[in-house]
Amino acid sequence: MNAPDRSRLETGLLQERYAEVRDQTARLAAPLSEEDACVQSMPDASPAKWHLAHTTWFFETFVLEPRERPFAPCDPSFRVLFNSYYNGVGDQHPRAQRGLLTRPSLTEVREYRRIVDERVRALLERDAPDAALRALVTLGLNHEQQHQELLLTDIKHLLSLNPLKPAYRAAFAPAGPARALGWRDFGGGLVQVGHEGPAFAFDNETPRHEAKLEPFALATRLVTNGEFLRFIEEGGYRQPELWLSEGWSWREENRIERPVYWFVHEGAWHEFTLSGAHPLAPAAPAVHLSYFEADAFARWAGARLPSEAEWEHAAAARPVEGNFAESGLLHPAPAPEAPGGECAQLFGDAWEWTRSSYSAYPGYRPAPGAIGEYNGKFMVNQYVLRGGSCATPRDHVRASYRNFFPTAARWQFTGIRLARDA
Amino acid sequence: MNAPDRSRLETGLLQERYAEVRDQTARLAAPLSEEDACVQSMPDASPAKWHLAHTTWFFETFVLEPRERPFAPCDPSFRVLFNSYYNGVGDQHPRAQRGLLTRPSLTEVREYRRIVDERVRALLERDAPDAALRALVTLGLNHEQQHQELLLTDIKHLLSLNPLKPAYRAAFAPAGPARALGWRDFGGGLVQVGHEGPAFAFDNETPRHEAKLEPFALATRLVTNGEFLRFIEEGGYRQPELWLSEGWSWREENRIERPVYWFVHEGAWHEFTLSGAHPLAPAAPAVHLSYFEADAFARWAGARLPSEAEWEHAAAARPVEGNFAESGLLHPAPAPEAPGGECAQLFGDAWEWTRSSYSAYPGYRPAPGAIGEYNGKFMVNQYVLRGGSCATPRDHVRASYRNFFPTAARWQFTGIRLARDA
Amino acid sequence: MNAPDRSRLETGLLQERYAEVRDQTARLAAPLSEEDACVQSMPDASPAKWHLAHTTWFFETFVLEPRERPFAPCDPSFRVLFNSYYNGVGDQHPRAQRGLLTRPSLTEVREYRRIVDERVRALLERDAPDAALRALVTLGLNHEQQHQELLLTDIKHLLSLNPLKPAYRAAFAPAGPARALGWRDFGGGLVQVGHEGPAFAFDNETPRHEAKLEPFALATRLVTNGEFLRFIEEGGYRQPELWLSEGWSWREENRIERPVYWFVHEGAWHEFTLSGAHPLAPAAPAVHLSYFEADAFARWAGARLPSEAEWEHAAAARPVEGNFAESGLLHPAPAPEAPGGECAQLFGDAWEWTRSSYSAYPGYRPAPGAIGEYNGKFMVNQYVLRGGSCATPRDHVRASYRNFFPTAARWQFTGIRLARDA
Amino acid sequence: MNAPDRSRLETGLLQERYAEVRDQTARLAAPLSEEDACVQSMPDASPAKWHLAHTTWFFETFVLEPRERPFAPCDPSFRVLFNSYYNGVGDQHPRAQRGLLTRPSLTEVREYRRIVDERVRALLERDAPDAALRALVTLGLNHEQQHQELLLTDIKHLLSLNPLKPAYRAAFAPAGPARALGWRDFGGGLVQVGHEGPAFAFDNETPRHEAKLEPFALATRLVTNGEFLRFIEEGGYRQPELWLSEGWSWREENRIERPVYWFVHEGAWHEFTLSGAHPLAPAAPAVHLSYFEADAFARWAGARLPSEAEWEHAAAARPVEGNFAESGLLHPAPAPEAPGGECAQLFGDAWEWTRSSYSAYPGYRPAPGAIGEYNGKFMVNQYVLRGGSCATPRDHVRASYRNFFPTAARWQFTGIRLARDA
Repeated sequence: MNAPDRSRLETGLLQERYAEVRDQTARLAAPLSEEDACVQSMPDASPAKWHLAHTTWFFETFVLEPRERPFAPCDPSFRVLFNSYYNGVGDQHPRAQRGLLTRPSLTEVREYRRIVDERVRALLERDAPDAALRALVTLGLNHEQQHQELLLTDIKHLLSLNPLKPAYRAAFAPAGPARALGWRDFGGGLVQVGHEGPAFAFDNETPRHEAKLEPFALATRLVTNGEFLRFIEEGGYRQPELWLSEGWSWREENRIERPVYWFVHEGAWHEFTLSGAHPLAPAAPAVHLSYFEADAFARWAGARLPSEAEWEHAAAARPVEGNFAESGLLHPAPAPEAPGGECAQLFGDAWEWTRSSYSAYPGYRPAPGAIGEYNGKFMVNQYVLRGGSCATPRDHVRASYRNFFPTAARWQFTGIRLARDA
Repeated sequence: MNAPDRSRLETGLLQERYAEVRDQTARLAAPLSEEDACVQSMPDASPAKWHLAHTTWFFETFVLEPRERPFAPCDPSFRVLFNSYYNGVGDQHPRAQRGLLTRPSLTEVREYRRIVDERVRALLERDAPDAALRALVTLGLNHEQQHQELLLTDIKHLLSLNPLKPAYRAAFAPAGPARALGWRDFGGGLVQVGHEGPAFAFDNETPRHEAKLEPFALATRLVTNGEFLRFIEEGGYRQPELWLSEGWSWREENRIERPVYWFVHEGAWHEFTLSGAHPLAPAAPAVHLSYFEADAFARWAGARLPSEAEWEHAAAARPVEGNFAESGLLHPAPAPEAPGGECAQLFGDAWEWTRSSYSAYPGYRPAPGAIGEYNGKFMVNQYVLRGGSCATPRDHVRASYRNFFPTAARWQFTGIRLARDA
Repeated sequence: MNAPDRSRLETGLLQERYAEVRDQTARLAAPLSEEDACVQSMPDASPAKWHLAHTTWFFETFVLEPRERPFAPCDPSFRVLFNSYYNGVGDQHPRAQRGLLTRPSLTEVREYRRIVDERVRALLERDAPDAALRALVTLGLNHEQQHQELLLTDIKHLLSLNPLKPAYRAAFAPAGPARALGWRDFGGGLVQVGHEGPAFAFDNETPRHEAKLEPFALATRLVTNGEFLRFIEEGGYRQPELWLSEGWSWREENRIERPVYWFVHEGAWHEFTLSGAHPLAPAAPAVHLSYFEADAFARWAGARLPSEAEWEHAAAARPVEGNFAESGLLHPAPAPEAPGGECAQLFGDAWEWTRSSYSAYPGYRPAPGAIGEYNGKFMVNQYVLRGGSCATPRDHVRASYRNFFPTAARWQFTGIRLARDA
Repeated sequence: MNAPDRSRLETGLLQERYAEVRDQTARLAAPLSEEDACVQSMPDASPAKWHLAHTTWFFETFVLEPRERPFAPCDPSFRVLFNSYYNGVGDQHPRAQRGLLTRPSLTEVREYRRIVDERVRALLERDAPDAALRALVTLGLNHEQQHQELLLTDIKHLLSLNPLKPAYRAAFAPAGPARALGWRDFGGGLVQVGHEGPAFAFDNETPRHEAKLEPFALATRLVTNGEFLRFIEEGGYRQPELWLSEGWSWREENRIERPVYWFVHEGAWHEFTLSGAHPLAPAAPAVHLSYFEADAFARWAGARLPSEAEWEHAAAARPVEGNFAESGLLHPAPAPEAPGGECAQLFGDAWEWTRSSYSAYPGYRPAPGAIGEYNGKFMVNQYVLRGGSCATPRDHVRASYRNFFPTAARWQFTGIRLARDA
């Protein structure tokens, strides 16, 4: 295949993918009323309407504005309203006030999406887009997939605060027995971590480089609700020696005594899910845990959290399979049997906290300009999570993928894989 | 007319009034989208949907529940969700989280209103209601009128925080020249204040009693935007000697430099109104002022705020006329000519801050039970406002009516009438 | 006696009084170490050293500076360091940082007192001071007496936070049986309140004017610890219907369950006093109560707090006698027998909360200049207390004296006298 | 030398060292008045008196209590009062209230030191102490040296908040020209980091292990005041693109515009030092910088902060020489000439921020029991600093030494060494 052909093919695939990802966002928002889509439950979370608009703003700002000639914004006020944190683009509507934007309406935001989609499609069709344009559109689609997951976790948080405990959609219950916890040994040595090659990856996954590992072992599955319940029942939330000092202060100040979506109803433990409240499923992975809770649990279990290099070394050898958003569960499920003592659930189900602070790889360079604000400026006081969750699109994640959240964050699908020195 | 006839007549009037007041609330909410009606802009303000539900809850809880046999609640969860502050009724959904209730939807709340209205009507029709029932329904209607005003001030606050500066409804501009400020003298002595007689009044207006006044004078109209602008231009917000000590701290901490809805656009002062942003109208009364701002302005002007007894003494002799919600302006208007040096604008346009702390009249007794929580438990650290505003229903207010807000409140239509010792 | 003689006599008395009051302040600070005198326990309280310096600053600033020729400040930095809140004098060291001033040392502050005393004495001796100067010195002495009381309440608060529960000075225990609670009726009508005449009074006690009272009754003594304990035991701190709405919120946020200096030690109630911790004395007046606690107790007791006019009307007929600072107890004592059903303990023992918000009397005019900031600018969101306490100098208080504190203040000797409608 | 002899010799050296370190603490506190030694300027800082007591408590609790037979505490209340954060020992007096402890007095705390010293000496003399005891005493002495530095930085913070800008001791001014900034290249590869061997080190420096480095370069000296001033003058504090996102929020919320001890006086930049205020010395290292400021400066300079492994690799080859507490300057000095392009100032002058989050080395195990709380529980959301400062005792630090502080901390002698990829 010659270069123009390859280019045309790639463009065709990109157009297809653009339609697919953008439609998926709309589908995720479909069960929400105008009210559901407008309200913001806390400064960390954003309204669904805002996600719909901001992902569109990303394409308008970073794809249309530098490429369309002449360019006119859909609405000049959107530049500020839907800018998340790009100082290079200009002012931003205050994050904590995203929920006050009852106007533009959800209908108007859908129309905004329609218009930008049309213009992006036109841009891609006009003539074979160059590699830089294709890269920007691809970045925008991966950006949109991140917001698909946030849309789900943010609406879950909002609905959880409603005493009616409403469901995002029809009920289900993850069932099945818990598999016994095993350990898989790894030998250590110099290993390669990070991304390399032509496939898409975020800049924070680069450059690929060597890291030195000591021998270690990983648990063959995620920590389950049943195990976490034992931690609670044996006083895990009341023993300061299990906690990091800052974690203990956080626990005391916020009077934390259980995972954020757990509650007792008529004497039995329940869990709030995107399908409403359900009795706690002991075999399902424990999720919505802060780093502090994950770390305390690991200490209680006589183990520790893995480093991100350990995790990546183990995961790089495994296929990207698991319980992702596509399963439709939108909730973690009990671990399947993994043949030969391999680690199950490395991908999907729950983001796995690592003990690694989110920082730049040796030689890391953010992109120039506003787009360089995407990842680099958050590299402090956050910890890396790996593997994707039940709310992550399957084709969005890979072994080198680095997610990151502050240590107190609990509204994401965050869980625990234990590690220990071999 | 014999007693049964009078009772039937009264019941008929009450039914008519019930329909009228309830419909008016619905009309006020009509311009709002589902999103507008759901969002809460600050803990002090409530969503329009919540106002629609809470006023209905009031009738369900205080009228239907003790009178209907058998009684079944429309939805048991509403008892908590829409209870504002009645500990005697039970738990309350946290005030600051009223805006998180995306469910029940606006449509469901409207259905809630329809059902309760039907049941109240049935109750009133069944047989001649006794005086106690008529009093409760009347209280509920006056309660609903208070929420009609809050619905307007709360939606105004919400829209004001949207950078698009959207209008609640179509534009208008109060025009007309400013009348010169005059003074009307009053002689002092022993005067009667408070309510007496068969007409409805809140319990905080009773008992009627004597107060001793020294001779005083009241300004013949409200302070205007033009006058308040001069206060700003002459440094009123920068001179601590004009302010109460607590007011100055409030000003510093919140960096207050102008009335809450004033802003400068392209070099000119503007004001946000329920019809969107407009150039500041110099002859219109200055509104949305805190007690602290009102007090500082009065000191700057060499005057003071009136006491509530002074105000009531002056107003009791005047008809209840003015720019009320019925005018459709929903914004204060320049003072009309008042013949014979009388005080204009005593009613309507703006609630007038008095220097009187909100407290119990001698011999005051709140009603027994939960309904007694209506007024009495707020009698501390709030100041009395008199006369109603452009968002108050005309037949809701009277000379003895006591409104009250904390000293820092600014989102109500609160203005200034100057007083001085004679 | 001719005018020059009278002036000389008055000057002599003033010099004597100056020495007496200033010495008394030093005596009160004598038991304190340098450390005790330096530390600030909360923003509301000031270090003893700061009281020693600020009262001296008052004489330097308001007496010496305008009268000495030439005038040179003892130390130019003191103008800011020891200015409490007089904007008319200039900048102020931040209130919450008074405890950070380890320099100047206590020794240096004592030297500051010595020098200013010498210069004030010289000024008074030089030639017969005019009435204005005598008035300023008298104001300064009354100001100093207020700080004598604050010095005691502030050191009490500081020591109370030390787990060692140290005593300000040697122990004592108020003993004696509780007198039965009686009621004294008053007839109401037009009464005179406020100060008039040549004797010293603060500007906030003027002008004398008429107030209209309804018939009322006052309890013949203060509420005792034993009575307040019953309030606790019967759930007074757990029943929202007893509390003002803002009081209940205050109670919840601060998890208040007992008076601030009460605690349980080995199963028995104790009270922290200026002589350290002691078993609770049931017959002694309950003190260190907030307005909210006082108001809730009164409601529980089926009574109310008196208005300040009621209190003053009752007190004006009684001699200023009681348990003042001079008794050396520095703690309230059980009520003595009061012959003929009169009210005991009107003066001394505990400041009595009134239901009256602190506001200007009709015709009140603050003095011009910085000295006018003394009282007027605090006339908002505070409540009036009457009668003086066991920490007040006997000759400092009178029937018309108005003390005032915010509703949540608890570190003063504040107690409860019940009132009711007759 | 046989084992008993060696043991005796080691004990003799330990006794000598004990006396030396303990005396040095007393010498550092000598210039402070009782007031200086008692006050706490912020929750992060402790009073000097508390440092004197807590370091003594450490010996009493971890050395005397398990070894003396019979053991009786000097004062049972000290167990709680002077416990910093050891949950394994029991309750702790709240950190933010250390400054409220006006009792025990400074004199009593000095007596506490004398008694514990006597008992520790007796214990060491009784018979040859075993290795475990020697290790505990050595840990206690290294602990005490850490508090020697904190005593200096805490008193500096306290004095800096006094408008009189008092000096801890007599003045000096670091002088000398600034050396040109050079770069020293390092080759990367697998390097050894961490401590190994019989000499004392904290547990967080172990185990020694391999790390993989890419080629890098380090600046040959610390960043100077002159260079940091240029950062300010070129708008460094106003350009969000230079800052980490959390750093920019921190800067905005706290309105940070300059290093914490810098100020402008009569148009010229000054710096507050332990010898009072001085004109800013351009050649001296910039100190008291937060991680956020250090990181922003590095980005502005086109460089980055070193990792802790890079720093240790460079420092391990160099002697531990520099401007330490023993120099008596107690302030960083201009860099000396370093022959052959070597890095100067690696030790002393200023703690150097690294980009490395403080975390456990592979295989790290905290000691069992309360003593294990020393380091491990702080391994989150803090960043590693290396090399010691002008307030660190010379024999306290080494190449493997890991200090750590949160990213917003500014009251330590924290500075910047630039790094870059080679």
